Amino acid sequence: LPISDIIVITGGLGPTHDDITKDVLCNYFNDKLIENNTWTKKLIDQFNQRGMDLSERNKTQAFIPSRSTLLWNDFGTAPGMLFNENGKLIFSLPGVPQEMVNIMENVGFQKIIDLLNSSNTESIIYKNIQTNNIPESSLADLIDIKEDFLGNSSLAFLPSYRGVKLRIGAYGESKSQAEKELSRIENYLIPRIDNYIISFDERPFAQIISEKLIIKNKTLAIAESCTAGLLSATLTDIPGSSKYFKGSIVAYSNDIKNKLLNINNEQLEKYGAVSKEIAEEMSNNIRKIFNSDYGISITGIAGPSGGTKEKPVGTVWISISSADITFSKLLNFRGSRDMIRERTVQSTMVEFIKFLK
Amino acid sequence: LPISDIIVITGGLGPTHDDITKDVLCNYFNDKLIENNTWTKKLIDQFNQRGMDLSERNKTQAFIPSRSTLLWNDFGTAPGMLFNENGKLIFSLPGVPQEMVNIMENVGFQKIIDLLNSSNTESIIYKNIQTNNIPESSLADLIDIKEDFLGNSSLAFLPSYRGVKLRIGAYGESKSQAEKELSRIENYLIPRIDNYIISFDERPFAQIISEKLIIKNKTLAIAESCTAGLLSATLTDIPGSSKYFKGSIVAYSNDIKNKLLNINNEQLEKYGAVSKEIAEEMSNNIRKIFNSDYGISITGIAGPSGGTKEKPVGTVWISISSADITFSKLLNFRGSRDMIRERTVQSTMVEFIKFLK
Repeated sequence: LPISDIIVITGGLGPTHDDITKDVLCNYFNDKLIENNTWTKKLIDQFNQRGMDLSERNKTQAFIPSRSTLLWNDFGTAPGMLFNENGKLIFSLPGVPQEMVNIMENVGFQKIIDLLNSSNTESIIYKNIQTNNIPESSLADLIDIKEDFLGNSSLAFLPSYRGVKLRIGAYGESKSQAEKELSRIENYLIPRIDNYIISFDERPFAQIISEKLIIKNKTLAIAESCTAGLLSATLTDIPGSSKYFKGSIVAYSNDIKNKLLNINNEQLEKYGAVSKEIAEEMSNNIRKIFNSDYGISITGIAGPSGGTKEKPVGTVWISISSADITFSKLLNFRGSRDMIRERTVQSTMVEFIKFLK
Repeated sequence: LPISDIIVITGGLGPTHDDITKDVLCNYFNDKLIENNTWTKKLIDQFNQRGMDLSERNKTQAFIPSRSTLLWNDFGTAPGMLFNENGKLIFSLPGVPQEMVNIMENVGFQKIIDLLNSSNTESIIYKNIQTNNIPESSLADLIDIKEDFLGNSSLAFLPSYRGVKLRIGAYGESKSQAEKELSRIENYLIPRIDNYIISFDERPFAQIISEKLIIKNKTLAIAESCTAGLLSATLTDIPGSSKYFKGSIVAYSNDIKNKLLNINNEQLEKYGAVSKEIAEEMSNNIRKIFNSDYGISITGIAGPSGGTKEKPVGTVWISISSADITFSKLLNFRGSRDMIRERTVQSTMVEFIKFLK
């Protein structure tokens, strides 16, 4: 038996000659493949729906080691498998990321939680605090944790495009002790960094925006330049976004900004496309063009070329408008084209969440 | 010394209390931290540019184990480090994905190649063949490899949103023998699957499109519905895309399709927004609105709601038009909202590459 208590293997479950994971597992566990009739039927149905017969190749995907449990895969032809050997879990999952995630979210994580709950009276409760608009080192200075403060608990600083996420791991010898420990850490932490907290969970910013707009029954339109649709695509990742998202215009040149967003050519000349004035006009005009309650605009220099001394690569103006209020903000990012675009989108969502408060 | 010849460690190089990688490395190698003056100067400059002094916390990031070599990080405050211990490489890299990639692409991969070249006369040459529009199992049937065909060489089937990528690993006892072996495998393989080959390298589809449009000196505009900017954002990932990309309109409702894309309301009523007729009108109208050479449109049902019996979730119509030709195609995908949108974007790029041939 392996030394680790939980092992997750991905890949090698496809129908081609290089897919040997199941053979290796049979070899390791001294097991043999048997047909899972439910999965065979699922494959036959799926192929029939496409007007095809189940091929011999794909039929082999319904055979799994006899000592494993089949884990349902909503999206692919290969099921996941789980071995439970004397309380040790060995997962074998498809390598296609979405299929792997689907199986883990459906049943995999629950199997792990069950294992942990069954074998342990000690408890660790995790809680996330998503911050934004403050670098990791300044956040650490604000929090200023003393030597023995954490004890057996932990506090992790996890930076990403969304900002720095704090992950508290509160330890206790029972669940209620862990809960007390979490309160103790939160009571110390939160007042110190309140201004920078965006949310207390893992919800994407687009999800938070979605919930706010649906509650307010308001609509949104977007004018994007350097991010070229990335904000629109990110906000519409959320099912049901058609309730509040009306659409957007990607205006990649001054010509199009003039023609489709009704931006005055003289103003474009005077202020430059990347300016407070143009950003504000874009957010107001897009709101009027789409007849939406809110307008958001982004105009900036994602690079690698196009920067100047006054407006280096990474200079971005964003604006958010309603009928009453026009907000704008200058952002400055370093990094690659990708990073600048992605950070712009995340920061714009943060500003919009604040705007909706 | 470790058993593996190359080890890559990421993370734990930040300025906060939970960043302990350098201490662990010093402990393991019985080494101590010394200041790297070049990196200190870089940090001071970087902070000064933002009008800040270098904090004590961040200054610690310029200290690295004395036996390691500093690997330049273009984007972050933590440098990478490389230990070369008796021909074994141990990389310690920042955990922020873009910083890690930046360091590996700048110097990391080359260090590994140098190590491999110095220690080995045998040779493996890898070559990728990107296919599309054919499932893994059908591709395997077409190729139909016989038992002993590959010998010491390998052939991997790697499915993704882009389609199935074949990776040939041609083995030889010298470089020239490996090259001969690669030719042998290619000569067998390529004629059998020629119709499904998109490219012979790892270039993103957006890069292939970029090169074709620049050579032809042609421009592009896009009308997106269900993908809501994702195609536009993907195509503009490529630096210099403003040369050919004019912009796009995301029309998320019939109302906006009518108002901004000039789609006749009676036609929308008659055919439905997700139809060949509307897709073709969208690609032609967007081309005229933006005065571009090519127009691309996408209209479909990304789900999870909105599907019907005739047009289930995953039904997508795409169209590509020039002044002379209007092409359209029905796509059908299974999977989550994310998967349907991403697959639609990849397939649309494949069709556009064919259209530009």
